[in-house]
Amino acid sequence: MDLARLPTPALILDRGRTQRNAARMKQRASDLGVALRPHLKTAKSVDVARIAQAGGGACVSTLREAEYFAAQGFTDLVWAVCAAPHTLDRAAALVDRGVSLTLLTDSVEGAAAIAAHPSPLRALVEVDSGDHRTGLLPQDEALLRIAATLGDRCAGVLTHAGQSYGCRTPDAIAAVAEDERAAVVAAAERLREQGLPCPVVSLGSTPTATFAEDLTGATEMRPGVYLLGDLFQAAIGTCTLDDIAASVLATVIHASDSRVVIDAGGLALSKDRSTAATEHDAAYGQLCDLAGTPLEGATVTEVHQEHGILRPPPAGLRVGDRVRVLPNHVCMTAAAYDRFHVVDGSEQVLDVWERVQGW
Amino acid sequence: MDLARLPTPALILDRGRTQRNAARMKQRASDLGVALRPHLKTAKSVDVARIAQAGGGACVSTLREAEYFAAQGFTDLVWAVCAAPHTLDRAAALVDRGVSLTLLTDSVEGAAAIAAHPSPLRALVEVDSGDHRTGLLPQDEALLRIAATLGDRCAGVLTHAGQSYGCRTPDAIAAVAEDERAAVVAAAERLREQGLPCPVVSLGSTPTATFAEDLTGATEMRPGVYLLGDLFQAAIGTCTLDDIAASVLATVIHASDSRVVIDAGGLALSKDRSTAATEHDAAYGQLCDLAGTPLEGATVTEVHQEHGILRPPPAGLRVGDRVRVLPNHVCMTAAAYDRFHVVDGSEQVLDVWERVQGW
Repeated sequence: MDLARLPTPALILDRGRTQRNAARMKQRASDLGVALRPHLKTAKSVDVARIAQAGGGACVSTLREAEYFAAQGFTDLVWAVCAAPHTLDRAAALVDRGVSLTLLTDSVEGAAAIAAHPSPLRALVEVDSGDHRTGLLPQDEALLRIAATLGDRCAGVLTHAGQSYGCRTPDAIAAVAEDERAAVVAAAERLREQGLPCPVVSLGSTPTATFAEDLTGATEMRPGVYLLGDLFQAAIGTCTLDDIAASVLATVIHASDSRVVIDAGGLALSKDRSTAATEHDAAYGQLCDLAGTPLEGATVTEVHQEHGILRPPPAGLRVGDRVRVLPNHVCMTAAAYDRFHVVDGSEQVLDVWERVQGW
Repeated sequence: MDLARLPTPALILDRGRTQRNAARMKQRASDLGVALRPHLKTAKSVDVARIAQAGGGACVSTLREAEYFAAQGFTDLVWAVCAAPHTLDRAAALVDRGVSLTLLTDSVEGAAAIAAHPSPLRALVEVDSGDHRTGLLPQDEALLRIAATLGDRCAGVLTHAGQSYGCRTPDAIAAVAEDERAAVVAAAERLREQGLPCPVVSLGSTPTATFAEDLTGATEMRPGVYLLGDLFQAAIGTCTLDDIAASVLATVIHASDSRVVIDAGGLALSKDRSTAATEHDAAYGQLCDLAGTPLEGATVTEVHQEHGILRPPPAGLRVGDRVRVLPNHVCMTAAAYDRFHVVDGSEQVLDVWERVQGW
């Protein structure tokens, strides 16, 4: 089977690019002196996870992912979203099977439920290093109360400086990386001053992991999207277009003087428009030829559920021709697919790798 | 099981609302004197399809849907997206099993491939009634060539006036409905003048089906989103908030002075922002209490992959509380879920209905 015969739309993964992306981040972590705990919310695939593995554990965004990766032999997992109280029994089912699944909390109620659970659950306390999503500011009075509530079930502190996505230069991202480091290390020091355990000091995202200059005091970083890359990451400089390992294979179903229409629309590409906030707005995705080479200036300008529309029409495309589309935000795009079709620099499909979906 | 104990995020369907929505559209079709061929791209569920059935066939947006519904006994299907040539063998596998699966084409190449296929494939010719997505204008010279190429495999003509989504009043939608009718009927008349077969004259969407005043010459209409409803449909007046049958059940995972965060983010709600173009911008979704009652002015203002953020924080919500979110565009939101949890005006989960995903 090759890309010229695969049913479309389909999610394509270039294995060589993924391997290079993984190697680059392993080197970054080594250079910075921290462990690499790859965040698997983007890849959602055990085959990609094995490429990303760096000797330690991994990070997930849903309990479904935790269950899937645990079943595949990943026994050191951090679930980096604050756990709602009703999820604890489901998490405990993994812990009771010997999986080291570490939870996250930023509330006294959450910590109390974790501390009181009959299974030996453990949790990190989430620190807000400027993203203002979840987490507590490092100076917040509640930080120590939450850690004390967890007691010996406190695994440490964790932060995610998501505001790095608002930066447009390496220097700006490096400054956010330093804010991220400083916040989570300050929180760790407060815990330790009180005699509370804080073995783990976890931070990071693909932007800050890429441009951080110093991570003194941190123990691990958790980037994820770097494994596949996307147009937004290219726009902010954490990868190049040639690093983007994931694309959507599509077929032209209409070609006229005013437009070309492909069979990949809002469901196949997602409605993410994150590049609109950058200097490289790619509308709903960058068109490439079947070999994966970007076609200058050709983007999917409009999406309906199963239609992607290109106006003006890229030259030379006819009904039945195949193209590939690079995604704005690969986490959103890939989530629609239950598998990757794997290539490696050619149009030959070498393998099919399953992906986990849902919650 | 009730909604207070279900894992979150989860997709909730109110059966009574769905039944009322279905009954209303059956009555519309009856009043207008056309067959109702419900478009199942929104529901993607055989249980909802059975509620929607109106004596005839159904419409689908993907071959995967066609295969799923055919396996469940739906033997009269229209696949209302122009078929790429490589899909014909897969479509033929259904036809050869006795399913009346009618394809769609708007090109001579497409028609030739259908006409030449060894299985008895049939297709409708797509007419562009102003949406300018796929299809040919009714006066287009190629229309007759395509129909003639199909020969006795021509099933008729089909159109979708998607520009109705740009309308903001019933009168404006009624005018588009008339444009839609006039275009597809004109195309049908051109075919018949040439002695070409044109038994089916198919049109419609939820907006035009709701507000059309006369469908003379049409044989069937294909609305779909009306079965579930959403905030965009409410904003343009095809339903009320009380008709919206689908919602996302979520749990509060963070509550502070500045924000509430729920465990339904960009994947659970989709990144569709279609209500931004209306007078009722609901950001990423309208917050409701657990009973499904909208909380005035409370919307999901920002989404990350697994986080939905509400700023300012709705009063009274605490970590662990459950809420429901009405979607902007239910087709996009529901696509992330492999099942509906079914309620009927209460918080009791009565059933679980599977949904088909992917391609």
